[in-house]
Amino acid sequence: MARLLDNYDPGPQVAQCGAINVGTRDLEKSLHFFGDLLGMEIVAREGGTAYLRGFMELTHHSLVLTQQEENVVNSYSFRTRRAEDVEILYNELQRQEIEAVEVPAGTELGRGTAVRFLVPGSEHPFELYYDIEKPLAPEEIRSKLPSNSSRRRGLGVRRVDHFNVQTSRETINQAEQWVRDNLGFNRREYQLHRDDETVLASWMSVTPQVHDLAMVANAEGKKAQLHHMAFNLENMSDVLTAADVLADHEVHFDLGPGKHGIGQAMYLYVMDPGSGHRVEIYAGGYLIFDPDWVPIKWEREKFTDGLTWYGDPFVVEGAMRSLATTPSAGLDLAR
Amino acid sequence: MARLLDNYDPGPQVAQCGAINVGTRDLEKSLHFFGDLLGMEIVAREGGTAYLRGFMELTHHSLVLTQQEENVVNSYSFRTRRAEDVEILYNELQRQEIEAVEVPAGTELGRGTAVRFLVPGSEHPFELYYDIEKPLAPEEIRSKLPSNSSRRRGLGVRRVDHFNVQTSRETINQAEQWVRDNLGFNRREYQLHRDDETVLASWMSVTPQVHDLAMVANAEGKKAQLHHMAFNLENMSDVLTAADVLADHEVHFDLGPGKHGIGQAMYLYVMDPGSGHRVEIYAGGYLIFDPDWVPIKWEREKFTDGLTWYGDPFVVEGAMRSLATTPSAGLDLAR
Amino acid sequence: MARLLDNYDPGPQVAQCGAINVGTRDLEKSLHFFGDLLGMEIVAREGGTAYLRGFMELTHHSLVLTQQEENVVNSYSFRTRRAEDVEILYNELQRQEIEAVEVPAGTELGRGTAVRFLVPGSEHPFELYYDIEKPLAPEEIRSKLPSNSSRRRGLGVRRVDHFNVQTSRETINQAEQWVRDNLGFNRREYQLHRDDETVLASWMSVTPQVHDLAMVANAEGKKAQLHHMAFNLENMSDVLTAADVLADHEVHFDLGPGKHGIGQAMYLYVMDPGSGHRVEIYAGGYLIFDPDWVPIKWEREKFTDGLTWYGDPFVVEGAMRSLATTPSAGLDLAR
Amino acid sequence: MARLLDNYDPGPQVAQCGAINVGTRDLEKSLHFFGDLLGMEIVAREGGTAYLRGFMELTHHSLVLTQQEENVVNSYSFRTRRAEDVEILYNELQRQEIEAVEVPAGTELGRGTAVRFLVPGSEHPFELYYDIEKPLAPEEIRSKLPSNSSRRRGLGVRRVDHFNVQTSRETINQAEQWVRDNLGFNRREYQLHRDDETVLASWMSVTPQVHDLAMVANAEGKKAQLHHMAFNLENMSDVLTAADVLADHEVHFDLGPGKHGIGQAMYLYVMDPGSGHRVEIYAGGYLIFDPDWVPIKWEREKFTDGLTWYGDPFVVEGAMRSLATTPSAGLDLAR
Repeated sequence: MARLLDNYDPGPQVAQCGAINVGTRDLEKSLHFFGDLLGMEIVAREGGTAYLRGFMELTHHSLVLTQQEENVVNSYSFRTRRAEDVEILYNELQRQEIEAVEVPAGTELGRGTAVRFLVPGSEHPFELYYDIEKPLAPEEIRSKLPSNSSRRRGLGVRRVDHFNVQTSRETINQAEQWVRDNLGFNRREYQLHRDDETVLASWMSVTPQVHDLAMVANAEGKKAQLHHMAFNLENMSDVLTAADVLADHEVHFDLGPGKHGIGQAMYLYVMDPGSGHRVEIYAGGYLIFDPDWVPIKWEREKFTDGLTWYGDPFVVEGAMRSLATTPSAGLDLAR
Repeated sequence: MARLLDNYDPGPQVAQCGAINVGTRDLEKSLHFFGDLLGMEIVAREGGTAYLRGFMELTHHSLVLTQQEENVVNSYSFRTRRAEDVEILYNELQRQEIEAVEVPAGTELGRGTAVRFLVPGSEHPFELYYDIEKPLAPEEIRSKLPSNSSRRRGLGVRRVDHFNVQTSRETINQAEQWVRDNLGFNRREYQLHRDDETVLASWMSVTPQVHDLAMVANAEGKKAQLHHMAFNLENMSDVLTAADVLADHEVHFDLGPGKHGIGQAMYLYVMDPGSGHRVEIYAGGYLIFDPDWVPIKWEREKFTDGLTWYGDPFVVEGAMRSLATTPSAGLDLAR
Repeated sequence: MARLLDNYDPGPQVAQCGAINVGTRDLEKSLHFFGDLLGMEIVAREGGTAYLRGFMELTHHSLVLTQQEENVVNSYSFRTRRAEDVEILYNELQRQEIEAVEVPAGTELGRGTAVRFLVPGSEHPFELYYDIEKPLAPEEIRSKLPSNSSRRRGLGVRRVDHFNVQTSRETINQAEQWVRDNLGFNRREYQLHRDDETVLASWMSVTPQVHDLAMVANAEGKKAQLHHMAFNLENMSDVLTAADVLADHEVHFDLGPGKHGIGQAMYLYVMDPGSGHRVEIYAGGYLIFDPDWVPIKWEREKFTDGLTWYGDPFVVEGAMRSLATTPSAGLDLAR
Repeated sequence: MARLLDNYDPGPQVAQCGAINVGTRDLEKSLHFFGDLLGMEIVAREGGTAYLRGFMELTHHSLVLTQQEENVVNSYSFRTRRAEDVEILYNELQRQEIEAVEVPAGTELGRGTAVRFLVPGSEHPFELYYDIEKPLAPEEIRSKLPSNSSRRRGLGVRRVDHFNVQTSRETINQAEQWVRDNLGFNRREYQLHRDDETVLASWMSVTPQVHDLAMVANAEGKKAQLHHMAFNLENMSDVLTAADVLADHEVHFDLGPGKHGIGQAMYLYVMDPGSGHRVEIYAGGYLIFDPDWVPIKWEREKFTDGLTWYGDPFVVEGAMRSLATTPSAGLDLAR
């Protein structure tokens, strides 16, 4: 079969969510939240920046917290399928006349060279990279299971799950189409505006997950907002335990716990007390292995079932709740 | 990017587990077990053959039960990534001088043309197909969720998860290598014999699951045995509920409930009272998105942790338990 | 020690919730809900009346459904600690000049003589009895576990848990005090009105449960309303499964799933599609073994935590939700 | 009703399990296990003694760990229903010519006067007391829920659940009868030896739990052994999480996780790494509210279902596993 693969080049496809790099006004509070409560490992700290990962992540980090004046998203980063994809992407961006910046290896600790650009239309700062270190955890927290980096701790965050980003209604179709055409994202489920053309929300993935990336129209017309970053737990019952413990720590609940009809996963939306970014505690959901999956289109009259199959409702008296979002940094990032 | 894909041909890669087709001496008992207890939908019955699926499967079936004298496995079938892969595979088998049979569309109800062959070395009867119908469930059991075919029922089997097959120690390396080279399976975790060469067990997948297919050396040197078929539940707590209910129905327990270190999923092995085939009730586990995943090699002294992280142990006083397996049919299947 | 007990008479104390007897306009729909979905055993049907129990109840029934024009509560019944307590209560009611009716043995199938009266103040029709049959379930559904009457089925209702009843603000203190003084109920947690005297809600029990009976002030001044009857499941995850399945059957959700701060149990409130009575699907909670338990008083500013620790909130913009309730029958019940 | 209670004296009945006081050769290791892993609060330390409680216990402690040469049980203590019961018991012991010792208030920190004696037959050191302080937890770990003393932490031990003690076959009937006659314990489930007279195991309670105290015949004829102390978690899924985490900390597993047929609770037996005492991680089970409960007698051929409904079996090839037990201190305890 090997010969068939010789001249194969599917373009710079994305393999997985890498990390989200966010600013926080109160790093210590954010570290208490993500580290002590959610149970993520603090892999490294360098100056005002901390690198964290879940106990099932072997790679260096999936969350970067930086002490900053503004609670912005510095980058959404994704790993490519192959080492050469980073350069291929850079060339392709040139060809499409999309401004791109090379982020040198080590800019994020443990990570190789990345290409940084703003998604056409949305202005979300994406970074694509392939190389990343896989450091062993310190012996005192290392797991006996080789597929875990450290032992399960706190509320048991296993790994980053997905990012949910918002952009303006005017440009969402362009942005959503662009990541599908250029990065290998597949639409899995979606909702359209009344015009039956404009994307209201699109759940997309490069993996069998229902979404690694969701794009949603921003009600206020903003172009590059984070709705939430999601972290994955083992079971739906773990989301209940998380709700129990986080309520007792007076972490602000936004919505949930509940179950989405879209994706069929359990959700709990809370705000990181340090940064104010919304974090989804997430478990369950279905996987798509069908090679001929037909994206599920949600009709308007069923939106509520899609957003909230059961639990605390997203839609209250016709309006969407949960509008608070946080902005993104631009292309050039002085770090 | 499209131009890059023009001359792309990765060979007849497998997209997902399709179905297992097994004989049962007591079809009614098997249907009670899979249908009433496990909660699978009986999509169709035709003569002595019944087609079943889990409530999250939109395709026609993932389990075929046929009233037969012998409790054999008639076929393991897999869907390919693309329609043309079925023919490409047929040609490739010709080229490799592996005997293959065309299984006409409709031989399994709702399914298109398949290619049937015995995996070199192992003699496991594999069938690859692409086309399969996606019938709506009857209205009285249809789910409101478009990603489900029917409503959750009984013990809540969502979908087929994986197949675990055995072959002889003499030929396992050939068989394991063949499916990796020719069907796109990736080794995820594995164990070797004392010789550090011969595969004792290999967990392989074409998806981010740790395994869609496991191959294990058969202790008695048999070439084409089923160890178990696995069906997927939503949460680990569902496995406990299944254990509770199945114990009360006097279904024979083989092992579990417990958790594998390998794959990190919850297991419960029971015997279908109709056919005697071993069925794994399965939930949880981790997903592999890393494009540079290094297969985990389990050293001998840690095998027990790999097989049983907690729960009813697989390894009792040095010997593997759970040896009972069921044989497979040959290449030509009179159906 | 025995000599010490010779002259012991603690009065007609209640041992446990017995059953709730409700009217339903659509008995078949109610039976589908409680029997097929919730998984209760239909122990007997006689005319338009059906008797049900959970799989962990050895006594004859805990729910009586009667085809009736009005969806009323015909009775709340409780078992006494001792056989003689029924007569002692009758005499005590005479002494207090409270009208009481003897309900002959067999009026509810399988049950002995009961005393029926309206709780002073509230007008809730209570029936106290001691004798009740403990029939074996039919062999085809009987459990192998002697502490279960039948095998776990459907969504797994184990037993009745508690009743939550409403009465008017004017009379609630009288009614709440009366059941504590005369039936052995202990206050476990409670809330008072702004006047710091009038009971807003009181959770009371004769067992270590936080409540077998809750009394709540009715916002509309009605004297004898059912807020809900609660049935008990094994685990909090079972409440999630129930929510999943009931949503797919279009059963009307009132509130939840969520967790109460008061009692610390998981809740899901749904409406029986046949009768419109509110039913709480309930799991977890804490038990009180402390002999010197000090009833927990909830201050007004913490009411919301008490009602909803997490989940779909009871209190929306200052107003209590979930006001719909169903009335009770009077003292004389023509059955 | 009050007048009826005037001359009521049921004897010195037990209200609940109080605490277990055990020796440990390695106090720090035991504190890591019970405190950091199981999540119990260390309420106080005084010399080589530490006092712990679960997050749902308002009383001072339910576990006392003392650095000692021998890993013995210093005492099993129980709270009485009323303050005067302690003296009543002392007098009754005198009457029965059972040696008893007064343990002064404060001997266990926070606790009032207790009476210490050896259970006739078994020689288990029991202490009965009523008064115990209910200290608030330090503010930094205090729960917002008034029914919790501290926030849920670690693996989530809520409270002590029960003690399982062993005594010799020769004296078990005497001991079991004595606690039933004198302390108010009720038989809930039991097994007899082949002679159909001698108790093999008896599960007894003073609460609706199936057991607060189990007595089992010791295979080696020892008179006062601890089989295990049990601590209670919220859900069965919490027992799985505990198994997961404890396995990764190399805590020795004895049996489980699994479910008992007797009591229907989930179990996991592990050994405290500091002391070697067996600890049961316990969740679920049924409650007995029936005033006329008939103790369930388990016939020999069903013992295995009773001990292990599912999971890691207690009975392997005819022999009971889990024989390791730890001894008790005598009547006079120099502390």
